[in-house]
Amino acid sequence: MDGSNAPNLLAVLRDEGPMSRVALGERLELPRAKLSGELGRLVEAGLVAIGGPAASRGGRRSTLVHLADDLRFLGVDVGATSVTVAVTDGRCEVLASESQDCLVRQGPGPVLGTVRTLADQVLGKAPGRLLGAGIGLPGPVSFREGMPVAPPIMPGWDRYPVRDELSGAWGCPVTVDNDVNVMALGERHAGVARSLDDLIFVKIGTGIGCGIVLGGRVYRGVAGTAGDIGHIRLDDYGPACACGEVGCLEAYFGGAALARDALTLARSGRSPALAEQLEHGGTLTAKNVGEAAAAGDFAAANLVREGGRRLGHVVASLVSFLNPGMVVIGGGVSQLGHPLLAEVRSSVYRRSLPLATGNLPIVLSELGTLAGVTGAAWSATDRAFT
Amino acid sequence: MDGSNAPNLLAVLRDEGPMSRVALGERLELPRAKLSGELGRLVEAGLVAIGGPAASRGGRRSTLVHLADDLRFLGVDVGATSVTVAVTDGRCEVLASESQDCLVRQGPGPVLGTVRTLADQVLGKAPGRLLGAGIGLPGPVSFREGMPVAPPIMPGWDRYPVRDELSGAWGCPVTVDNDVNVMALGERHAGVARSLDDLIFVKIGTGIGCGIVLGGRVYRGVAGTAGDIGHIRLDDYGPACACGEVGCLEAYFGGAALARDALTLARSGRSPALAEQLEHGGTLTAKNVGEAAAAGDFAAANLVREGGRRLGHVVASLVSFLNPGMVVIGGGVSQLGHPLLAEVRSSVYRRSLPLATGNLPIVLSELGTLAGVTGAAWSATDRAFT
Repeated sequence: MDGSNAPNLLAVLRDEGPMSRVALGERLELPRAKLSGELGRLVEAGLVAIGGPAASRGGRRSTLVHLADDLRFLGVDVGATSVTVAVTDGRCEVLASESQDCLVRQGPGPVLGTVRTLADQVLGKAPGRLLGAGIGLPGPVSFREGMPVAPPIMPGWDRYPVRDELSGAWGCPVTVDNDVNVMALGERHAGVARSLDDLIFVKIGTGIGCGIVLGGRVYRGVAGTAGDIGHIRLDDYGPACACGEVGCLEAYFGGAALARDALTLARSGRSPALAEQLEHGGTLTAKNVGEAAAAGDFAAANLVREGGRRLGHVVASLVSFLNPGMVVIGGGVSQLGHPLLAEVRSSVYRRSLPLATGNLPIVLSELGTLAGVTGAAWSATDRAFT
Repeated sequence: MDGSNAPNLLAVLRDEGPMSRVALGERLELPRAKLSGELGRLVEAGLVAIGGPAASRGGRRSTLVHLADDLRFLGVDVGATSVTVAVTDGRCEVLASESQDCLVRQGPGPVLGTVRTLADQVLGKAPGRLLGAGIGLPGPVSFREGMPVAPPIMPGWDRYPVRDELSGAWGCPVTVDNDVNVMALGERHAGVARSLDDLIFVKIGTGIGCGIVLGGRVYRGVAGTAGDIGHIRLDDYGPACACGEVGCLEAYFGGAALARDALTLARSGRSPALAEQLEHGGTLTAKNVGEAAAAGDFAAANLVREGGRRLGHVVASLVSFLNPGMVVIGGGVSQLGHPLLAEVRSSVYRRSLPLATGNLPIVLSELGTLAGVTGAAWSATDRAFT
């Protein structure tokens, strides 16, 4: 935090774990005296601890350096219909997490109240020294100002000072970002895309969005709206979208669109499985579609295939355009699983340039519901450590 | 080239022009003694010259530092049907250029022969000390290896050692890149996108491609194929494309597609203007379509509108996805001019997120046929100066 090499040192201990003094000195290319000075300052600040002897590599025994055990970061993932809060250690390992149903359209008052309650709960389970927090929101965000900007599905949130309010409440720096960006960061640093520099993360939840990581960093675009693929228009005469336009990808295959189509299939008698689920549960969601499809219901399976095909067309264009190293598919609707993935893969592999798809894994999110909180916590460590 | 601050110094003189010693020292934050040492070495190497006194800013008069007048760089733009070679000074100003019709499908022997002949001609017109050359090729290129890789419209070029052959012939370093990437660099450093960090350059020539500049550098993707938008599929049942697939954007609106549609319109009698041009010239190209449309021919104007609309759909997706700071449209077919631009703009502004289009200029290339050679020469200076 103060010395010129300190940031690097903390980030290395976060990304690579405990390390002997000798290995750390070699890794950072620091002479012994300089390393000792840096470490002294960081130990005094309580950020780093020096533990028992490390495994000997021959010669004098070295001691093990690691991030202090009591460092804590909060990762918050606000979705359209739920809030998840996790507390992590300095290495972004989730120590405790809590989730609660919560409609983002209730506005910032009740939602941030829920966030703070859940944060108290997880910090109670894994107490320590809170150094920072990160939060992902389901809409466009001004990263610099730490607030949402004209978010379509978040009435009352426009330019609400989320960062400043939470930072005041928790007494630590807070970073605010788009939910898909933090999910992409989670997979990049702790999930399936670990160590990959160029990837796209496609989230299919209530809405559809895309996080872009280039050169290891989130690419946000000039106005911070990069990755907004949910409102790419597929058809000038398609179904109406929540954004006010028609024919958007999201209007075909977001969670809301799937629920709508599932209801139609159930009520028209074309899907016996969905009709039965509707009778039992009183309502239908994307999850029901997945279950019905898995149980062999033809109409439900067809819905997944059609949606996957449309999503695949968009992803194929993105792959041709950006030639990423990996495509990760996440978000609630991604629980449709293999049939969805198979459709997307087949579209991309058939439609994109062979050179661009030659070594392109198209995979499901590994962190699942924890991708967002993990990435948000990583953002917070990045701010605290650099 | 040798001192640790030299690269910066040369790049500053290239990008900002002649400068007083005092201004240069301030710009590079170098103490006077250190600057003198650097300058001494660069003057001795013949890279920098120190000219007459600069305008006085009060106090002691300072002298003007500039790149040596005899520095020369070659910029080469190989298109599908023509070759352009330019020689520039150290600031990438074109001193002389020559163009010649030349089919890239003749193979590397004849085409590189033409390149070398044209290079001799332009170097004869503006002789000096050749420090480097850059070349853009109309297909996928391995930038690192300096050769085309599996280029679809360039038989005989696959893995041909373009860089090594030209570097041997000219006795200087040579950089090999995709033609669209060097056009994007040209506009970025000397054209309409000067000083913009994030932009996309869409080339509509015989084929269609896209150069992506992010953070001021060309983004190439993991396998070097980023920007391949010509083969984004618009329709599973569309016209056949040269790549072997159907319904690609290029199959609707590349120069070859326009020529094909123009012939159909002329022969079927639906376009009197094109029929007359066919009778006079014996053949039709995209240029004829532009002329006929400008002269008020309904069918030709419709062809431009339809093509612009299709291109606009693809560009709208890219804008939503990447949120760039500018879209530049160039290449031969861009000479269709305003009607084309109007159609693309209307698609993008109607279909992309308002936040992403709020400050988004969609403009024609400023350097026109010299965009490629200028960007290729810039690549060469970048390699020589850094």
